[in-house]
Amino acid sequence: MTREFLKMHGLGNDFVVIDARTEPYRPSDAEVRAIADRRTGVGCDQFIVLEKTDAPGVDAFMRIRNADGSEAAACGNASRCVGWLLMEQSGRDGASFRTAAGLLHATRAENGRITVDMGAPRLDWAAIPLASPTDTLRVETVEHGGFAAPVAVNMGNPHAVFFVDDAEAVPLDEVGPVFENHPAFPERANIEFAQVLSPTAIRMRVWERGAGVTQACGSGSCATLVAAVRRGLTDRKADIILDGGTLTIEWTEDDRVLMTGPVALAFSGRLSAELVSAELVSE
Amino acid sequence: MTREFLKMHGLGNDFVVIDARTEPYRPSDAEVRAIADRRTGVGCDQFIVLEKTDAPGVDAFMRIRNADGSEAAACGNASRCVGWLLMEQSGRDGASFRTAAGLLHATRAENGRITVDMGAPRLDWAAIPLASPTDTLRVETVEHGGFAAPVAVNMGNPHAVFFVDDAEAVPLDEVGPVFENHPAFPERANIEFAQVLSPTAIRMRVWERGAGVTQACGSGSCATLVAAVRRGLTDRKADIILDGGTLTIEWTEDDRVLMTGPVALAFSGRLSAELVSAELVSE
Repeated sequence: MTREFLKMHGLGNDFVVIDARTEPYRPSDAEVRAIADRRTGVGCDQFIVLEKTDAPGVDAFMRIRNADGSEAAACGNASRCVGWLLMEQSGRDGASFRTAAGLLHATRAENGRITVDMGAPRLDWAAIPLASPTDTLRVETVEHGGFAAPVAVNMGNPHAVFFVDDAEAVPLDEVGPVFENHPAFPERANIEFAQVLSPTAIRMRVWERGAGVTQACGSGSCATLVAAVRRGLTDRKADIILDGGTLTIEWTEDDRVLMTGPVALAFSGRLSAELVSAELVSE
Repeated sequence: MTREFLKMHGLGNDFVVIDARTEPYRPSDAEVRAIADRRTGVGCDQFIVLEKTDAPGVDAFMRIRNADGSEAAACGNASRCVGWLLMEQSGRDGASFRTAAGLLHATRAENGRITVDMGAPRLDWAAIPLASPTDTLRVETVEHGGFAAPVAVNMGNPHAVFFVDDAEAVPLDEVGPVFENHPAFPERANIEFAQVLSPTAIRMRVWERGAGVTQACGSGSCATLVAAVRRGLTDRKADIILDGGTLTIEWTEDDRVLMTGPVALAFSGRLSAELVSAELVSE
């Protein structure tokens, strides 16, 4: 048998998306790696499978696999793509889907963009998590290479946001891994360097936990806006300007973080039989 | 409109193949680059379009574009893929197709492999081309870093084959560009380092003109076998063991070089409208 898939991307973060709601599909790690190979497979950063769910009002469970087959709890760029796909299929203007990190809601925004409600940020030290009781608005124990006292935010995953005068000048490859593995972060952390350009614009560069420098990080953009608002540096809604493009982030008065950004469909495809040797696993 | 395509590879050298024999398709360089992008497009080393030809007995013209949009005259790995595809479509056991470098014939071999008749090697100094009259069996003017006097062979493109005791020990990144751009080769050259393992097996590593180190080079494998036979080092048929896999090359008594190797279909697809904005050009 073969499997139909879509190849999509959000700000260059690319995905193979397979709708397995009618026909279950649970490939092994080796099969995911084969599909994620950019020369002999399809190629992707993450491999997304939409699975059936019986929860009322929920369109799908979104299972996120990294290119090595391991599971991820959240992926902001993929969430926009999945939201778009579910709305295209249902013809409705909203979609709800569950991930390992919680329930997400997607809606349409202007210019074909998609908004995903990323939920409430968690700001207490134990939820980040930090290693010991600390003021998350200014984590004084974290310092290296002239960078110090980031804001800590959990957006489903831990983030440390440093505000800097010049984001371009930050030696990301050098300081990123040091902060990611800093003892203050027992589960490590995603590291953001943010330069406030105006009350509605922030230039941000990111070092992702386990992935290094990436072009665009959705949850990191959310963490950055939350950090900027907490420090009184921007409005509650601002553009986050990333290497891969721009996301608009809003932290609403009722404590939701809304991420708005583009989605792109590159092509639809059908895997060859060699790439689909997975035994079917029903849930 | 959208376009259907196949994603194939030969020894990891990967291709987007579009059959445009019924509906002409001549994308711009920018469009080829968009499709060849491994994150936002489909991703490939070469972009292959099968075009209609009125020549009797010829199934197609095979147009080869590099990932930057530029045209290439020949690609051995892609030729096997195109041969397989044309035979699958016609149901016959042979296929003929024209490239900018000449007419090619493909047939089926054992284990699903495909044989392509790559034509006759050209061995005179002017056809390589070399800069001045030289014995191509031993190009004495070429020497660097302990490597000297390669065999020069033209297989549609120029090759220089060095025989070495240990192919793994060659610092390819260092000596490859020096030899590629050596003044002896006015059109530059592909550079092969070959270690004879037995009369029927050669380990070979390649530095491709304009591409650097690659996993597998079909024409370089042909040039290597021809060079080994000319030097009396192997039989007229031998396996060439490359980083990406093995090709079997035969130099027949009637001066044809036959390349036999695997083809793989990864997936079939349909480009999104954004990736197919090419205006149609009829031939």
